[in-house]
Amino acid sequence: MTDLVAPGRFLGMTAGEATAQWVYFGVPMDFTASFLPGSRFGPARIREASYALETYSPVLERDLSELAVADLGDLEFAFGNTSGALDRISRTAREILGHGQRFLAVGGEHLITLPLLRSVVQQYPDVVVIHWDAHADLRDTYLGDPYSHATVLRRVAEIIRPGNLYQFGIRSATREEMEYARAHSHLYLESVREPLARVLPELMGRPLYVTIDLDVIDPGAFPGTGTPEPGGISAAEAFEGLRLLSGRNVVGMDLVEAMPLQDVSQRTALLAAKMVRDALLNIVPRLGGKCDVE
Amino acid sequence: MTDLVAPGRFLGMTAGEATAQWVYFGVPMDFTASFLPGSRFGPARIREASYALETYSPVLERDLSELAVADLGDLEFAFGNTSGALDRISRTAREILGHGQRFLAVGGEHLITLPLLRSVVQQYPDVVVIHWDAHADLRDTYLGDPYSHATVLRRVAEIIRPGNLYQFGIRSATREEMEYARAHSHLYLESVREPLARVLPELMGRPLYVTIDLDVIDPGAFPGTGTPEPGGISAAEAFEGLRLLSGRNVVGMDLVEAMPLQDVSQRTALLAAKMVRDALLNIVPRLGGKCDVE
Amino acid sequence: MTDLVAPGRFLGMTAGEATAQWVYFGVPMDFTASFLPGSRFGPARIREASYALETYSPVLERDLSELAVADLGDLEFAFGNTSGALDRISRTAREILGHGQRFLAVGGEHLITLPLLRSVVQQYPDVVVIHWDAHADLRDTYLGDPYSHATVLRRVAEIIRPGNLYQFGIRSATREEMEYARAHSHLYLESVREPLARVLPELMGRPLYVTIDLDVIDPGAFPGTGTPEPGGISAAEAFEGLRLLSGRNVVGMDLVEAMPLQDVSQRTALLAAKMVRDALLNIVPRLGGKCDVE
Amino acid sequence: MTDLVAPGRFLGMTAGEATAQWVYFGVPMDFTASFLPGSRFGPARIREASYALETYSPVLERDLSELAVADLGDLEFAFGNTSGALDRISRTAREILGHGQRFLAVGGEHLITLPLLRSVVQQYPDVVVIHWDAHADLRDTYLGDPYSHATVLRRVAEIIRPGNLYQFGIRSATREEMEYARAHSHLYLESVREPLARVLPELMGRPLYVTIDLDVIDPGAFPGTGTPEPGGISAAEAFEGLRLLSGRNVVGMDLVEAMPLQDVSQRTALLAAKMVRDALLNIVPRLGGKCDVE
Amino acid sequence: MTDLVAPGRFLGMTAGEATAQWVYFGVPMDFTASFLPGSRFGPARIREASYALETYSPVLERDLSELAVADLGDLEFAFGNTSGALDRISRTAREILGHGQRFLAVGGEHLITLPLLRSVVQQYPDVVVIHWDAHADLRDTYLGDPYSHATVLRRVAEIIRPGNLYQFGIRSATREEMEYARAHSHLYLESVREPLARVLPELMGRPLYVTIDLDVIDPGAFPGTGTPEPGGISAAEAFEGLRLLSGRNVVGMDLVEAMPLQDVSQRTALLAAKMVRDALLNIVPRLGGKCDVE
Amino acid sequence: MTDLVAPGRFLGMTAGEATAQWVYFGVPMDFTASFLPGSRFGPARIREASYALETYSPVLERDLSELAVADLGDLEFAFGNTSGALDRISRTAREILGHGQRFLAVGGEHLITLPLLRSVVQQYPDVVVIHWDAHADLRDTYLGDPYSHATVLRRVAEIIRPGNLYQFGIRSATREEMEYARAHSHLYLESVREPLARVLPELMGRPLYVTIDLDVIDPGAFPGTGTPEPGGISAAEAFEGLRLLSGRNVVGMDLVEAMPLQDVSQRTALLAAKMVRDALLNIVPRLGGKCDVE
Repeated sequence: MTDLVAPGRFLGMTAGEATAQWVYFGVPMDFTASFLPGSRFGPARIREASYALETYSPVLERDLSELAVADLGDLEFAFGNTSGALDRISRTAREILGHGQRFLAVGGEHLITLPLLRSVVQQYPDVVVIHWDAHADLRDTYLGDPYSHATVLRRVAEIIRPGNLYQFGIRSATREEMEYARAHSHLYLESVREPLARVLPELMGRPLYVTIDLDVIDPGAFPGTGTPEPGGISAAEAFEGLRLLSGRNVVGMDLVEAMPLQDVSQRTALLAAKMVRDALLNIVPRLGGKCDVE
Repeated sequence: MTDLVAPGRFLGMTAGEATAQWVYFGVPMDFTASFLPGSRFGPARIREASYALETYSPVLERDLSELAVADLGDLEFAFGNTSGALDRISRTAREILGHGQRFLAVGGEHLITLPLLRSVVQQYPDVVVIHWDAHADLRDTYLGDPYSHATVLRRVAEIIRPGNLYQFGIRSATREEMEYARAHSHLYLESVREPLARVLPELMGRPLYVTIDLDVIDPGAFPGTGTPEPGGISAAEAFEGLRLLSGRNVVGMDLVEAMPLQDVSQRTALLAAKMVRDALLNIVPRLGGKCDVE
Repeated sequence: MTDLVAPGRFLGMTAGEATAQWVYFGVPMDFTASFLPGSRFGPARIREASYALETYSPVLERDLSELAVADLGDLEFAFGNTSGALDRISRTAREILGHGQRFLAVGGEHLITLPLLRSVVQQYPDVVVIHWDAHADLRDTYLGDPYSHATVLRRVAEIIRPGNLYQFGIRSATREEMEYARAHSHLYLESVREPLARVLPELMGRPLYVTIDLDVIDPGAFPGTGTPEPGGISAAEAFEGLRLLSGRNVVGMDLVEAMPLQDVSQRTALLAAKMVRDALLNIVPRLGGKCDVE
Repeated sequence: MTDLVAPGRFLGMTAGEATAQWVYFGVPMDFTASFLPGSRFGPARIREASYALETYSPVLERDLSELAVADLGDLEFAFGNTSGALDRISRTAREILGHGQRFLAVGGEHLITLPLLRSVVQQYPDVVVIHWDAHADLRDTYLGDPYSHATVLRRVAEIIRPGNLYQFGIRSATREEMEYARAHSHLYLESVREPLARVLPELMGRPLYVTIDLDVIDPGAFPGTGTPEPGGISAAEAFEGLRLLSGRNVVGMDLVEAMPLQDVSQRTALLAAKMVRDALLNIVPRLGGKCDVE
Repeated sequence: MTDLVAPGRFLGMTAGEATAQWVYFGVPMDFTASFLPGSRFGPARIREASYALETYSPVLERDLSELAVADLGDLEFAFGNTSGALDRISRTAREILGHGQRFLAVGGEHLITLPLLRSVVQQYPDVVVIHWDAHADLRDTYLGDPYSHATVLRRVAEIIRPGNLYQFGIRSATREEMEYARAHSHLYLESVREPLARVLPELMGRPLYVTIDLDVIDPGAFPGTGTPEPGGISAAEAFEGLRLLSGRNVVGMDLVEAMPLQDVSQRTALLAAKMVRDALLNIVPRLGGKCDVE
Repeated sequence: MTDLVAPGRFLGMTAGEATAQWVYFGVPMDFTASFLPGSRFGPARIREASYALETYSPVLERDLSELAVADLGDLEFAFGNTSGALDRISRTAREILGHGQRFLAVGGEHLITLPLLRSVVQQYPDVVVIHWDAHADLRDTYLGDPYSHATVLRRVAEIIRPGNLYQFGIRSATREEMEYARAHSHLYLESVREPLARVLPELMGRPLYVTIDLDVIDPGAFPGTGTPEPGGISAAEAFEGLRLLSGRNVVGMDLVEAMPLQDVSQRTALLAAKMVRDALLNIVPRLGGKCDVE
């Protein structure tokens, strides 16, 4: 019965867990979402949508099935138990890094970036965080709570070294967040490609962690997300931004806030899946080839 | 400018907060939802939908605008902070009861019934709980957490007096929940009207608290809900069940798990709003009239 | 090029305009709709949906293509110009009746019944109106306007002879409408089949006009409608009600308030189309056969 | 990393492929669909939806995880290559039966029943086919093609022994199909439960194959299907019909025509998944228990 | 009970009716819509969506809650009574202007601009009308009616002074409308930002009325509208166009044709709400600050 | 009854079949679709949507009703019978060309281009194919089948003369397809306007066949399509690309893969309809005017 399909792995992620250089996993947690919840369905639908893509990109001239990436599946959570979930996410990232592997995680909500980075910082204390988002996510607390998708980059800024946070594409923030950003972040309003191209050469050789809130993209191209903010970069600009990461020393990455359930056109999940594919095509070295990090 | 509408109150709830006999409020909390979140939008859409109804019911021959009901608006929460939310809900119910008023609350998720009942039990220690639902909600813990929409009636059974829990319309449960029910609950599978009509005479004069998970209704008639379970009673049976409550000593009530966002037909919000209206038409005494509780 | 389809006629309506006994036409007017407009798209989508049905009914054992019914297409209107539209509808009905034909019209909103009946009354002064609806539609004015989908049966009652209005399935009305109904109408709450079966024998031989607001059916089975009212008869009861009309002297008929645009499942248009088919199978005499009116 | 979920198996199907008594697999083929295609997404969404159910049924008092059922995944096809697909389906069924196992397959479109039955007939020449459907599916050809979802039961009738086809719930057919049915089928219009309860005792001990086109259920409860036909049995009647199969000698089964993509409420996939669960709870003998076939 | 939310006011509009410099109100009228009605739900959904935004814009560096804007709620209408509705809109605008206030109104359909401008012209006879739209709206009559969303700018051109109409972004018109435009309007095809930047300096100091049909934006970014016209400006261009209004002498404004009901992604209402916020941030002077009109 | 509309013809296609220079017809075939089927509904919805447009374009300054275009309706097929369908399509195109007419066909899936071109090549052996698409469609076989929407341009390349295939906007392909393209096609990645403007002068006077897979446009602007590929050109670029065809010797054209059923915003059908209109406004010579082909 060899013609029966084994579903459950992202398209073209053919490496075994032991031999993979990069691992991919889903973090279907969304319980601090403030406007529209549902990103917990992101990982499953992104995996399903990946099968509508090719493993090969004619633009990047690389093939996902030729890279050593393994899909580990999704983490499971007790809904509403925020601290337990954060611990589990952090532990998973630590184990992966401990095996000498790097990871790309998909959410779920943006708060998952905090536990992921906690583990990254232990191994790479001088990590630089590259953050794409519609929202600054720099509040101190949100509705009284310090742990939320709206405070996550503030918490991140507190655990990495000063000056190591770079934010791109921001188009929504409070006055207080902008004041905090002036002191603690390099924040670029509304666009990604142009400021990222300017900044990356200054970071030559530094370990980078990339966190992409997919709502940085215009809601017309990416309608299914937790807090859609009108305006935003095009899908084309997002793909070009990923291309700028090629050859950089990316040590970990996440893509968050895909909420595909209400999108009957399926384009939310498809765009998220293609972002995953192209991110990996850009940042994972070719098998057997030398690592082409600058 | 007297022709400008003041939105924000449920249709026909014309009483002032001070003079009302019953108060109505929304509890837009949904962060322990396990399958499909979004019930936090329930209260706002139910209020909006109420304006498509009449205040008068030709079947019940009563008019909502002739009853002393006030709409207090909605509670506000820090998303993800479960214990803070439960405290706030409990305090609100206690204040209402302390003013000699009774309440009908709309969710939001089913966990809100626990803090509401905590306050009711303080004033009515022998309260009988009438529970309509597709699910037994009698687990001890759910994914490790004792406070969840899936454990809420177990927690309720632990704070009311033994033998005071009656469950109707249940069509989903684990083997363990059914064993618990055999010892601690009067549980009736699949239907509401017939067993309720048999049970209510035995409870003559007792204070009743009614909690209705709207997913007891078939997903065809009520598609927008957190964990739709195929099968279920018809909308007609639900309205007849409410009618059986007429003249009973209902001291508090809630309707939960309406999740209207994904329902472009609007019928989820409309059915929930009509359930609110008909519940109040049946259980609130007419203004100036004597209370006709048996 | 005989394999090119000629769309634009309802399935199986094969008679020519001149030789038809019954004519079918659409009245895509919806500008007095109060809650959800869009019934103007009803006629086109009902025609499109008809092609998913068979011309033959195994339950009724009759075939639409064997009856002399012609589809005339749809009337065209200046939107918002209510009185011009009503005149045009009335004139069309008068012309049809003047040719010795009978008609089935589909809306559009319920107000179209008034001009249709104006022409019917001229030819059949003692016509009896059979009305299925969720709403009594007996207001004197609605938001200050005497011509509205909410007043249409009041206006109808004023132009037919006293005692000739029979209403079925009503589940929404104001107190004032119910008082008016007590004096001027035979109104049956909530059900259609049972009271209709009781009433029809009393009307033996009388000319009947049947007006069906499709919202009489439960919103679960018929979600796309202008003012969906929770509760309602099943699709099965609607089809059985049509069957009771078999062999009666129906001189005209309309089905209104189908609003299929928001219904991605297509079942609104499909149910409306099957109601059209079954209505005609029941009330139109077989070609060449004698008219079997009692 | 034991907390990573392994998706891709239907809830509670825990048996290995080798030791299973029954096997479950998906047949995502839909290329002869005439009105609304998309049932190829059925198997994946039904599996996903199964996780919103319990393995235990409080009504049937049985647990799916205690039965020896294995989920083999889905067949893969070249779209549009009908004959290749039919061969592959037939071969898969033959292999399963050759291992002494029985199967429940989910579609996909109804045409898949033909190749499944071809293999069943080889092993059980006197098999009786129990068919639930809105449509008779007895045409000789459909748009010139003898192999179609609209002709499938005609083809089935031609390969099983005369008198062995029983059809239930039919509400759409042409005059020609009804004539064919009179000679070659036991066809019951509009209902399932009552005629099935009458028929089954006559079939005592005979090998049964059950094919359920889920469009037998009312489109209100099951909106996502290829050719929704207004009217239909309730979900409750469908579950009761399955219960009548308990203890019968069912040797194979399929459920077809679930098309969940356009149904944002998810209830199409949920109802299909619960039908799968309850079918198996009724027809698969308990592990270690004796087979209770009469 | 201070933690109960009082809904019904647009986010951050904190001024009282008496002390406001600008007032905001909704005009939920849509009965002349020709293709897709439903803009009557615009005002309520825009208000609801506003709560997903911040009051502060990091791009404009201004905060809505620091401006003297009051939300008056929505006008109420008799549906279908066009002339009564137009009178009421006109009277409301006149009263506001009579109090020395300015207004931003949201529709509803585009015809509301006519009665609003009738009142504006009485106070500012030399008002210049800045019109953004996909459609020229310059027909003399539409389906026989001179008062329609398709004729509204023609009627406007007739009541303002010659040469005072400027139209931007137009991408649909009849040949007759283009001929009328050549004589009576400054019409710029397809784009807004560039021609607006050229024109505004010529209008230095003149009183401006801005009317924005939101369908000027591409249907990908703004799908919920009455007559979506393929092509159109991006959301980014729309926000930049608003910024050009900063410091101009805008005396009144409207945004029309948002029809958010069918848009499950919520981005129609969100974009409309952000357009309202940014329009006010650009044109309303800061409280206590001097008016910075050139 | 002259006010009854005759639906079923594309807006403004007023020529008779005999006198038309160009004919328009629908090819509602979609049975080789691999990801999302449903394009068979394209022709009907595109025709319906055309009535929301004007016949006149203010940008192109031409009017569709002044051109000699006839709408022939849609072809009818036996679903699943691929070879029969391809024959019928080919025969229709041959008959049209035999009458000295040219055609614009709308799909349906992309495979329809093959039989259309088979007939075009017989008459114009040196035809040049201009192909806009997200996908290269150059596979040799797809899931074992040589005739598929994924192989169609490979088959086309095999029947036209070497070097006559030009592909634009491609953003998805396998490595093998790109190798084939290097040898057999002029393939331009990601954009249409710029490379098309460069290429067209080289093709001066040559007969052109234009095949547009509408998924070349970004899924934000064109969500309803069979295999939506993230990224893509804007609607504006598509219209500008059509304008480049003005005055060229286009002998036939198709637009395929519109799948409007799931798009409640209607913008898929509207954009397809406007593409049809503008294509014809650009390529069909004005009536009575001389043909302005270079």
